[in-house]
This record gives sequence, C-alpha cells and structure tokens, in this order.
Amino acid sequence: MKRNERLVDFTNFLINHPNQMLNLNELSKHYEVAKSSISEDLVFIKRVFENQGVGLVETFPGSLGGVRFTPYITDERSLEMSQEIAELLREENRILPGGYIYLSDILGTPSNLRKIGQIIAHEYHEKQVDVVMTIATKGIPIAQSVAEILDVPFVIVRRDPKVTEGATLNVNYMSGSSSRVENMTLSKRSLSIGQNVLIVDDFMKGAGTINGMRSLVHEFDCLLAGVAVFLEGPFKGERLIDDYKSILKVDRIDIANRSIDVQLGNIFNDK
Amino acid sequence: MKRNERLVDFTNFLINHPNQMLNLNELSKHYEVAKSSISEDLVFIKRVFENQGVGLVETFPGSLGGVRFTPYITDERSLEMSQEIAELLREENRILPGGYIYLSDILGTPSNLRKIGQIIAHEYHEKQVDVVMTIATKGIPIAQSVAEILDVPFVIVRRDPKVTEGATLNVNYMSGSSSRVENMTLSKRSLSIGQNVLIVDDFMKGAGTINGMRSLVHEFDCLLAGVAVFLEGPFKGERLIDDYKSILKVDRIDIANRSIDVQLGNIFNDK
Repeated sequence: MKRNERLVDFTNFLINHPNQMLNLNELSKHYEVAKSSISEDLVFIKRVFENQGVGLVETFPGSLGGVRFTPYITDERSLEMSQEIAELLREENRILPGGYIYLSDILGTPSNLRKIGQIIAHEYHEKQVDVVMTIATKGIPIAQSVAEILDVPFVIVRRDPKVTEGATLNVNYMSGSSSRVENMTLSKRSLSIGQNVLIVDDFMKGAGTINGMRSLVHEFDCLLAGVAVFLEGPFKGERLIDDYKSILKVDRIDIANRSIDVQLGNIFNDK
Repeated sequence: MKRNERLVDFTNFLINHPNQMLNLNELSKHYEVAKSSISEDLVFIKRVFENQGVGLVETFPGSLGGVRFTPYITDERSLEMSQEIAELLREENRILPGGYIYLSDILGTPSNLRKIGQIIAHEYHEKQVDVVMTIATKGIPIAQSVAEILDVPFVIVRRDPKVTEGATLNVNYMSGSSSRVENMTLSKRSLSIGQNVLIVDDFMKGAGTINGMRSLVHEFDCLLAGVAVFLEGPFKGERLIDDYKSILKVDRIDIANRSIDVQLGNIFNDK
C-alpha cells in the first residue's frame, strides 16, 4: 500500500477504533512498513484531527508504544451544535395539550442524536465513565449516542420488571412533579460494584426520575459520575437534585401563542 | 493544507457525511485546490474504501459533479460479524427462568450494535428505506443503529400512549405466542403517507408484534420495505408473517444443560 493509500486506511482505522490503545509494532507489521513511517503518518493525522476538532491523537513511546484516538470536540463546536438543536425546538407545532413538548422527531434523527451524544460526552471526557444509565423510553437513544462516543455500555432502567431481564433490583422514588411514589427496576447483572455511572435522560422537571436512578446507582454500590439531560423544563420549587448538566433549557411555554422560550442549558454557563 | 493532510481530512469528512451528494466545486473551493486534485484524492480514497470494504465511493461527472460515500460491508464481513455475535449468545448463564434469553448486555454494547446495524442495513442497501420502525423497549437500540447507517429517522411504537406523543394512531393485534389481543400506538405525526418503512426488532417468536407493526404501516398509508430481526426464536406452528430476515436463530433452548443452540439466521441462507 502506498503512503497516500495508507493514510486513508489509517485515518479510517483510527476513527473506527476510538479510545483504544493501538500497538505501533502491530500497525507497522500490518502495513508492512517501518515503525518510523507509521509515526510520520501519525504526525499528519494528529495535526489534522486536532486542527479540525476531530479528536486527540496521543502517541506513547517505549517498546510497547502505542497510539490512542480520543474523539473530541471543541467548546465552540459544542455550542454551535446546541444552537442548531435549539432552532429545531423553536419550530412551531411542538406544543402538545398540557404544555408538553413533542421531541420524538428530534430524538429519532441520527444526526441530532450524534450531536447530543457528542455534546454530553464532551462534558465527561476527562472523567472516568464505565457505563451510561437511562430510563425507558425516550432516554434510550441519548444513552446509546453518549455510550457510542465514550465507547462504554449503556443500561436501561424500566418502570416495570420484564421476564427477559432476570433478577432485578427495584427502588421506589418520588416523582418530583406529581409527588407520587413510583417504582423503577434494573436487571441485577447489568452493573458491577464500583462502576462509575453517568445518568442521562431526555427531559428533566422536578428530577424525581433522575433521583430514583441515583438511588439505584447507590443500591448497586456504584459511583455517580454525573447527570446530564438533553432538556431542562420549567419547574417551580426545589429540584430533588442540583448537580446536573443540561444542553438546553425551556423557561416558559406559551401555550396561547404556541411558542417555546428555548435557552442554552447550564453546560454553557461557564464557557 | 498539504496533500497528505488533505487526504486525512477528506477521508474523515466522507466518513462523517455518508449517503450525501457532495459537490466537487465546493470541495475544491474548501480545500483551495483544483478540482483535478480533489479527483486524484478520490482515486486513492475510492481504492482503499473498496478494497477494505469500508464503502462505495461514487463520483458523478458534469458541472454539478459530485461524490457520494455509501457505507457498505461485504457479505463475508456480514457473516463474520454475525458469527462473532453468535459466540456471545452461546455464553453460559443467558438462560432465564421460563426459557427466556438474556440479551440486554449484548444490546447495550455499542460495538455489537454497530455490527447488528451494519448487517441489517447491508440487506437493504439497494432498497428504498425512508424510515426505520421498532417497538419499545429492546428494539430501540437496533433501530437506532440501522437508522444511523442508512441515515434515515427511526420511530418508536409503544404499547401504551403517552402525553408526550400528541395524537396517536392505535391498532390492535394478536400476540402470536399467547393469542391475546393487545394494543400498540404510534404518534400520528411520525410518518407521512407513502414512506417506505423498514420494521426491525430484537426478537421474534410468533411474529404477532411484528404483524401489529405491519398493520400500523398500512394504517399510516405507508409501504413496507422489509422486516428484519436480530434473533429468531423457536416457534411451533405457523408464524403470522413469513417474509422476514433474521441475523441469528435459536432452534432449541436446553434449560437443563443451560445451553442454547444458536444458528445463523435466514439472511445467510442464500449466501
């Protein structure tokens, strides 16, 4: 393979093996060129990936020397993508009876989900996250997108146990907005003791559901790596949790004029 | 940007813009080089992508000339990935009380989902698919993975209507295995008349659920592009549908010996 072709192949290979340590000796054997040629290729790839905000390319010296590609976006790109999604939320016709917001089209479009996944993963790329947790149904595509970028598994909490889950661990929780006691359940084998769990969800009001997931994390003897939601809704009173990150925030839903006041979430507060 | 760097950047750009017609004039302007240089780059990229089974790179001549990257895997790669997942299914401890199979870990791991998505999308890459449909909960990650590769939206059918879905269209269906009448529902605005719908699900026995989704497709005045399932289970009697594709098939679950007889599904019958 000529250098030009190798660069194309190598670029594709790195993109498809994120967050993994790749051995330089094996790459050199695979491409049938000296390790120094591989290192030279990496100089080009590193420069482009870092200039274009594709991700970090780190090389590690030594006989077991390796390279690791970590997908990474800039703060600017994160902001830009959030604004693109905010525009979608501002479209007419999203307000449903009762003041609910229709999100299913946004959360059913792969390009939007990729953006949401990148924005959330970006906030945790310096933290240890072993697994992403969400609750059925609408949190699932978000959890999957975040997990894909962090390259970790995701687990799905349910409101009712299923025969296909085996033994489950159940907790009760107070719904933050309606003050009812509810139940949530997670397959016992889906988490191991000591794992760092990132909780994600599509929408948060009183944070009752997220608080329930937080107690599940504790019951599993796991650690909470963080809480991130796509959209934070208007809520009067005190939320059950205060340490969370949100991509977007809706302050007011004007049902009469069919308009939603969409703002950037607290992720962008200190940026 | 030097050629070497441009090749890296261009490769990354194509991978991140699948199934889209990209204008050669705009690319030439973006990279500040002659259109002929872009065309030369594409020769390298095309050769590597096609040799390595990454995807098709098609160039279209003319003043509006463009290039389109279509992710594509070979039949061999599809078979190889199916066998890798079959091995996971054969692991001990998957059999739950009642002869159910624990799948949540497999369907919660991004690398497996990417494979499942690629295998299913590969079967439909010559067909027109406008939208992927599934039913909550476990079908969702599969639908998202397939939709991601086909670059189309996905919609989620539910067993109970939610206030966040707006007006819904509901159908009743017979569960194939238990012969009960059940209900399923889909937000009315999630499909448009005449769309080609690909139905996917994680598991199929009597095909009652899939038959229900098929009647939803008809009630929406849409067309059925196909039916694909990850796993086909053992079923005695006649299935409610016979035109479907499966990646893997379980013929027998030996509860006493805790072993599952996992075979390749009908996708590989004629390959």
